[in-house]
Amino acid sequence: MKMKEEEKIVIIGLGLIGGSLALDFRKNKERALLLGIDTDKEHVREALELGIIDCEIDRSQIAEADWVILAIPVDKTAAILPEILDLVKEDAVVLDVGSTKEQICKAVENHPKRRNFIAMHPIAGTEFSGPSAAFEGLFAGKTNIICEIEKTAFSIQEKALQLFKKLNMRIRYMDPKAHDKHIAYVSHLSHISSFMLGKTVIAEEQNERDIFDMAGSGFESTVRLAKSSPAMWTPIFKQNKKRVLKSLSEYIDNLNHFKMLLESDDFDSVYTEMEETNKIKEILKGIHLKKELSYGE
Amino acid sequence: MKMKEEEKIVIIGLGLIGGSLALDFRKNKERALLLGIDTDKEHVREALELGIIDCEIDRSQIAEADWVILAIPVDKTAAILPEILDLVKEDAVVLDVGSTKEQICKAVENHPKRRNFIAMHPIAGTEFSGPSAAFEGLFAGKTNIICEIEKTAFSIQEKALQLFKKLNMRIRYMDPKAHDKHIAYVSHLSHISSFMLGKTVIAEEQNERDIFDMAGSGFESTVRLAKSSPAMWTPIFKQNKKRVLKSLSEYIDNLNHFKMLLESDDFDSVYTEMEETNKIKEILKGIHLKKELSYGE
Repeated sequence: MKMKEEEKIVIIGLGLIGGSLALDFRKNKERALLLGIDTDKEHVREALELGIIDCEIDRSQIAEADWVILAIPVDKTAAILPEILDLVKEDAVVLDVGSTKEQICKAVENHPKRRNFIAMHPIAGTEFSGPSAAFEGLFAGKTNIICEIEKTAFSIQEKALQLFKKLNMRIRYMDPKAHDKHIAYVSHLSHISSFMLGKTVIAEEQNERDIFDMAGSGFESTVRLAKSSPAMWTPIFKQNKKRVLKSLSEYIDNLNHFKMLLESDDFDSVYTEMEETNKIKEILKGIHLKKELSYGE
Repeated sequence: MKMKEEEKIVIIGLGLIGGSLALDFRKNKERALLLGIDTDKEHVREALELGIIDCEIDRSQIAEADWVILAIPVDKTAAILPEILDLVKEDAVVLDVGSTKEQICKAVENHPKRRNFIAMHPIAGTEFSGPSAAFEGLFAGKTNIICEIEKTAFSIQEKALQLFKKLNMRIRYMDPKAHDKHIAYVSHLSHISSFMLGKTVIAEEQNERDIFDMAGSGFESTVRLAKSSPAMWTPIFKQNKKRVLKSLSEYIDNLNHFKMLLESDDFDSVYTEMEETNKIKEILKGIHLKKELSYGE
């Protein structure tokens, strides 16, 4: 029996996303050696203990990697990605998973090894962070947005797409600017809305914590994202500032309009505002349907 | 064998809450006859078909009821509750389930049969509505806030509490004004935040519906409540206008402050804003723990 050669997978950033990808690599590759890098030594220890990685390495060993995954805050990715590409061998696949794409793509646009890199954003995650939040199968059925695919070498594309298929991900191709524009609305704004909702309620109820057991699933649902990591989200808001500000201004305008309707007792319009937004039901249902169809399930 | 006498349960409003309560009554009462009233004849038909009620009645038959549940919009409850109390027999239990309590309590404060009434707010629900959304067990493990319990006759309290115990509900007693004040923060505000988030994103993306499959679970979670019924929510906002406006103004202030921080590139403060709100994690965890403890699970 011929043994398949061992693949060296380097995961930079052993949090929820990096850790979950590591677990999926291990499951889907016949022989994978999982190598971890993280500035947080507690995360390294945990990732070793949880069997997410086989050992810790340092950056000098990246030259031997077959795969390098960057799963760190987007400002750090933009900063170190050029150096990582400098180090990797000819046929290595380098991936990032960041929630912004324009600045990351820009950071390597003229890099001689740009063709080794796939800029992607798997739309997957939970409000939890760290290696202990990682789990196998996080990416199954999720959308993976890949930007500037034409800048990636065909052989690299092929390897990566094969893996994504095994992970049961649904691929969409998009321009980095379009990605950042739309994701400001369907993800970044939700986080601000949730954080500020949490802040508002905590400020009001800080002396009456008991009040929180009046909270039902509705409150929990809208405030869930306020558990997210500030270390991850601050650089996202910084990199996508212009578009986030645009969506946030529109959101505030809509809230002010709703407030004005309440103040002026225009409850017919209050009704209409909600009724018109109810179509989100069909929109979300449409997505689920489309996702199911694309797997033939 | 002695047959237990049949209990007549009248459900006014055969939506998610009324329908689910009907199913729970049927499960927990040895012999219950479920009688339904709804101005929406399609809901009556569905409720009959789904076995939620045994038959439709009209208001004249309320005199025979052992239990009357009002599960209709809060303005309608405040309007018809006095007439319902006029009609019921001496030992009937009359319950409402509305999301506001002050005006409903006020509507019957001097009613000679005030003692038959329990003003309550079970913190349970989903974003769906109508009889088809109803299910058995919706109330299990949920908090039920009862207002002005001292105004309800002891025998009526006893019957109702026995039922709530069977339904595995967790009881909290509260003054109607305090209820309305706190619920503005932990429920009503979440709904506005969610509706306006949905509105903002739909407005931006109306010509590019495909964009919605970039939306992940985060967006779905924050926008879920925007599926809620305008017929139910308009009267809630009307009845609790003053407190809803207060919470909404504070929310808008917080969003404006966050916007200002982004605009002025003060990302240290952006980080701190999020970090401080992260404590919602512990607060929500605390609730779950408390709820579990109170059942000894």
